[in-house]
Amino acid sequence: MSIERYLSNIAPLDREAMQAARARQEILTKPQGSLGRLEELSIQVAGITSQHAPKMKHKVALVMVGDHGVVEEGISAYPQAVTAQMVSNFLQGGAAINVLARQIGVRVVVVDIGVATELDPDPNLIIKKIARGTNNFTKGMAMTRAQALQSLIIGAEIIESEIEKGLDILATGEMGIGNTTPSSAIAALLTGQPVEKIVGFGTGINQEGLQRKIEVVQRALEVNRPNPGDGIDVLAKIGGFEIGGLAGAILAAGANRRPVVIDGFISTAAAMIAVSLAPQVRDYLIAAHTSQEQGHHLMMSWLGVKPLLDLQMRLGEGTGAVLAISLVEAACNLLNEMATFSEAGVSGKELS
Amino acid sequence: MSIERYLSNIAPLDREAMQAARARQEILTKPQGSLGRLEELSIQVAGITSQHAPKMKHKVALVMVGDHGVVEEGISAYPQAVTAQMVSNFLQGGAAINVLARQIGVRVVVVDIGVATELDPDPNLIIKKIARGTNNFTKGMAMTRAQALQSLIIGAEIIESEIEKGLDILATGEMGIGNTTPSSAIAALLTGQPVEKIVGFGTGINQEGLQRKIEVVQRALEVNRPNPGDGIDVLAKIGGFEIGGLAGAILAAGANRRPVVIDGFISTAAAMIAVSLAPQVRDYLIAAHTSQEQGHHLMMSWLGVKPLLDLQMRLGEGTGAVLAISLVEAACNLLNEMATFSEAGVSGKELS
Repeated sequence: MSIERYLSNIAPLDREAMQAARARQEILTKPQGSLGRLEELSIQVAGITSQHAPKMKHKVALVMVGDHGVVEEGISAYPQAVTAQMVSNFLQGGAAINVLARQIGVRVVVVDIGVATELDPDPNLIIKKIARGTNNFTKGMAMTRAQALQSLIIGAEIIESEIEKGLDILATGEMGIGNTTPSSAIAALLTGQPVEKIVGFGTGINQEGLQRKIEVVQRALEVNRPNPGDGIDVLAKIGGFEIGGLAGAILAAGANRRPVVIDGFISTAAAMIAVSLAPQVRDYLIAAHTSQEQGHHLMMSWLGVKPLLDLQMRLGEGTGAVLAISLVEAACNLLNEMATFSEAGVSGKELS
Repeated sequence: MSIERYLSNIAPLDREAMQAARARQEILTKPQGSLGRLEELSIQVAGITSQHAPKMKHKVALVMVGDHGVVEEGISAYPQAVTAQMVSNFLQGGAAINVLARQIGVRVVVVDIGVATELDPDPNLIIKKIARGTNNFTKGMAMTRAQALQSLIIGAEIIESEIEKGLDILATGEMGIGNTTPSSAIAALLTGQPVEKIVGFGTGINQEGLQRKIEVVQRALEVNRPNPGDGIDVLAKIGGFEIGGLAGAILAAGANRRPVVIDGFISTAAAMIAVSLAPQVRDYLIAAHTSQEQGHHLMMSWLGVKPLLDLQMRLGEGTGAVLAISLVEAACNLLNEMATFSEAGVSGKELS
């Protein structure tokens, strides 16, 4: 299977479905426009799904997990072992993403795409390990070009398989100690912004750690000189396996007309890789929230998306995206289930 | 029954429960503080409910409905008949609030506290009509002082009765053609801001209508000269029955240690009345969202609350509050259900 299949199969939004949704919004029992962004969302999802009345029944959070060789540079507050430990926590249902997914009715799919530790088989864990973590990208490429392609294909194929089980909307999520560092490198490269405007405190380093992290990202960019016009080169040189996996998942969701709710800093870096490979997938993206991680707003601007929530979160895992899925579901339910003025016998405006 | 009983029974938040919730947030499997405002919310709700692990099982949206004599001044885009028509829509489940309440598992309680039309009895409609709409407050008081007290008591007693059925959290909602006008008058009086900074387009008047609405509010304030230090005087002279009913509901929720999620412009005016009667109820309020109605942010600042959502909504009915209830529920679920570092066998920070 090749990734080109996905890149060339992402269609423009369906203007006719969008027009039908927009027309219906005008006759529902509310002042026109009074549902604000929920109206816009319903119209976008109609365009994405090519349905006049899209239903978000099957909701999936894809949590891609991978490790990062660059942790040996001391850029994370937590030890690398936490990546594997958090996979157990996901499988036992004790992490934040599990709690939110249970409340909102979202199926959580956990994928080991490159954890440094060997993980025990588990019926709820998809093991597609490319390697035991990436290489330290301050000393060369994070992964080979073949591995970058492999990460995209793994993500895309998992989405194909989840669509068979039922997937109306996708939330992106991830876990990987150190992964704000490659995400910062991708963001700085693609936005063209200075590294120090992008790099943030991650899971909670101090000022000295922040300075070290900035230098690490600068070194990674100097050593690797990734070509910003070639998303696969960017992913291979300064990315991560879970970032590639999510980019592939986003592309496959777009090729299958499924809306994608992108979570925080790392998921947004993955979306940037996806958009750099297939610009038309941008219209399939819904930005969940503004991360507290510095530079996230610059990445949002580059993508041209406007986040739905700002709850000062910075956890990842897909937590913001799952909360936002609930808003997308609300938008679709309102479009589908509200009575029209004539159905309800409600009078229209008399003054304008 | 007198309203003083509620005013004197609103206790400060429980500092010990808040400390317990804060301490638990520190040991859950996430970087400290990474759930942002959801952590703060869980701590506030612990303080409100006096519970270390509050559960938001029974969720209620109270939709108070009333009419306004001031509509004869031409301040609304819709005819007064829409108030009663929307009550039918609520009872048939076709309004926006019904759709969102179904999704989020919220019980909708609809109250006729002063609709101009006689409404047919319905098992799902509480009829507590004080009068067939308020008086035109550009020509005198909107209601008598006795009616203002009555509206507060009706709201409070409904909450007492709903608590018996199960009410862990309250969302305020309302319907009443013309009710942004009294809300604007209350907001201008209590914040001390110029009327033209408060009055907005409501359900959709034009620029000329806006000018008329500003003049109407100014006239109402000049004719009635309400005493901003006397919340009941304010309610009687420039308020509305549904605004009083919601203020009473907020006070009773506070007196019963239940969190109150306040919706948009009208609900916020009701919360201002409640806070002017019992300042300590402020700590029981959770601001749902920033309404698109001009001046709402000034009311939020006066209350000292910070809205959770900004989705450019301006519908009322409790729609923003019901969406925000889902976030409060998420905050409590995370506090209750997430594993701790030791339970999950996850390592803590190594760098700080």
